[in-house]
Amino acid sequence: MLPNELRKEVAAGRFSGQTAGVCEGFIQANLVVLPELYAADFEEFCRRNPKPCPLLEKVGPGSHLTAKIADNADLLDTIPGYLVWQHGHIVERTADIRGYYRDDLVFFLLGCSFSFEQALINQGITLRHITEGKNVAMYNTTIELAPAGPFAGTMVVSMRPIHHRLVARACAITAHFPEVHGEPVHVGYPEMIGIEDISRADYGDSIDILPGEIPVFWACGVTPQNVLIQAKLPFAITHAPGLMFVGDLENVRFARCSLRG
Amino acid sequence: MLPNELRKEVAAGRFSGQTAGVCEGFIQANLVVLPELYAADFEEFCRRNPKPCPLLEKVGPGSHLTAKIADNADLLDTIPGYLVWQHGHIVERTADIRGYYRDDLVFFLLGCSFSFEQALINQGITLRHITEGKNVAMYNTTIELAPAGPFAGTMVVSMRPIHHRLVARACAITAHFPEVHGEPVHVGYPEMIGIEDISRADYGDSIDILPGEIPVFWACGVTPQNVLIQAKLPFAITHAPGLMFVGDLENVRFARCSLRG
Repeated sequence: MLPNELRKEVAAGRFSGQTAGVCEGFIQANLVVLPELYAADFEEFCRRNPKPCPLLEKVGPGSHLTAKIADNADLLDTIPGYLVWQHGHIVERTADIRGYYRDDLVFFLLGCSFSFEQALINQGITLRHITEGKNVAMYNTTIELAPAGPFAGTMVVSMRPIHHRLVARACAITAHFPEVHGEPVHVGYPEMIGIEDISRADYGDSIDILPGEIPVFWACGVTPQNVLIQAKLPFAITHAPGLMFVGDLENVRFARCSLRG
Repeated sequence: MLPNELRKEVAAGRFSGQTAGVCEGFIQANLVVLPELYAADFEEFCRRNPKPCPLLEKVGPGSHLTAKIADNADLLDTIPGYLVWQHGHIVERTADIRGYYRDDLVFFLLGCSFSFEQALINQGITLRHITEGKNVAMYNTTIELAPAGPFAGTMVVSMRPIHHRLVARACAITAHFPEVHGEPVHVGYPEMIGIEDISRADYGDSIDILPGEIPVFWACGVTPQNVLIQAKLPFAITHAPGLMFVGDLENVRFARCSLRG
C-alpha cells in the first residue's frame, strides 16, 4: 500500500491501528499541534533536543495541509489516532480532529524511529515487535531535556531487543538517520536511564528480551507528550503513540554518512 | 613524532613500549610472519574472518620491506616487540628478528583498533587506557572463527570502557573503519562472549570500569596469536600485543561510509 492510499483508508475510518512496518520504505512522523502562542518556544525546544524532537516539517498557522513530507495531506484526519490534551491531561482519543481546528494552530511533524526500521531489517536485524505484530515498547526515562519556555522534562525512548552480536551494527545503521532519531541514546542497562521494570512499557506493547538479546534504546517522538504533561498548556493535540503520520518521502532520502569531525 | 622517526627510534632500540596513542593520526598494524608453506591458508583465513584479521598488506616471500602502508619500512626491526613461536609456544620475546630471517617468510600486516582511537577522541569519547598511559585490555572469547587449513579457534577482543550515553556513538564512529576492525563485536555483557572475569585481561593491561561506563568489545589483531597456539606450526613470528607496527598512511584514509545495502 502506498502512503496516499493508506491516508485515504485512515481518513475513511478503515485503518485505525499502529503503523510499525506499514508502507514499508516511507517516512513516518510524530505530530504535535499547538496554538501559535507556544509555537516559537516549541520550535526552540526541538532545536535544543534534536534527538527526541527532530523537526521534519512545520505547517500553519492558517493551514493543515502538508507541503514537504507529503503532498497536500490533511493533518486533521490522516493519522490513525490523535490525543487531545487540556492542562496536561488527555481529554479525548479520536481519529478525526476537524472539530478542534482553529486557524491559530501550528502542526509540528517530528521524525520517527519507524523510519529506520527497514534499514535495520535489510541488514539482517530482526525486529520482533514487527514480526510479532506489536507496537514498539516505549518508556519514560530520567534523561533530562534542554528546556525552552514552558517545555521541559525527561526523554521518552523506544526499546528494541537486538541479538548481542548485532547491537553495534544496529547503532551504526541508525546513526545514518539523524532526522529520525539517529543512533541509540543508550544500550544494555535500563536502570542507567531510570527504567526500573523493563518488562512493563509505559507506552506501546511490552516485549520479552530473549536469551542472547540486549535492550537497545532510541530517543522517541513521544517525548513531547511527556513534556506536555508538565507544561500544562490549556490546549494541544498529538498523535497517539505508535499510530503515526505516514508521508510520501522515502526513508532512504534521510540516510547520510554519520562520520563527523 | 612522525612514523618514520618512530621507526628509526625503534630500530635503534630507543623505543620499546606499547604504541596506543603514539604517532597520532597514523595507521597501526598487527604482524604475523609465516613460512610460505602456510601463507595461502592464512590469507584465506583472513578473508573468512575480516573483523579480527583485516589484511592491510602482504610482504614477501623474498622481501621484508613494506610498499603500501609505509615507505620501505624494514619489518625485521621497526616493531617495538616481536614474539617468536615454535609449535604453538612463545620461545622468545625480542626487538629484532634479523637472526630469524629466511627468504621463504611471508609478512602479513593486519589492521589495528588503535587506528580508530583518534576518531573516537575527536568526537569527545575519552579512552582511559590512553589517558592512564596503559596498554589496551584484551581478552580471549568464545566467539568461533571460520577455519582455513590449520588456522582455527576463537576470537581475541580489545575492550574499552565507554560512558553509557556515548556507546552507540562509539559504535557508529568505528563502523566507518572496516579495515581496522570496524564496529564492536559485542557491547555490555562480557559473559555473553565467554569472558568470566572482566577485571583480569588476558593480554595488555586491565582497566577499571567506572560507574556509568559500559565495556565495549572490538575484534582484535591478537586473534592470530590465539590461533597459532592451536595450529602448532613449527615456526612463526608475531608482534607482541599492544606493540604495533606504525605505518605512514593516515587513519582518515581508511574512513568510509558504513551504510551498506
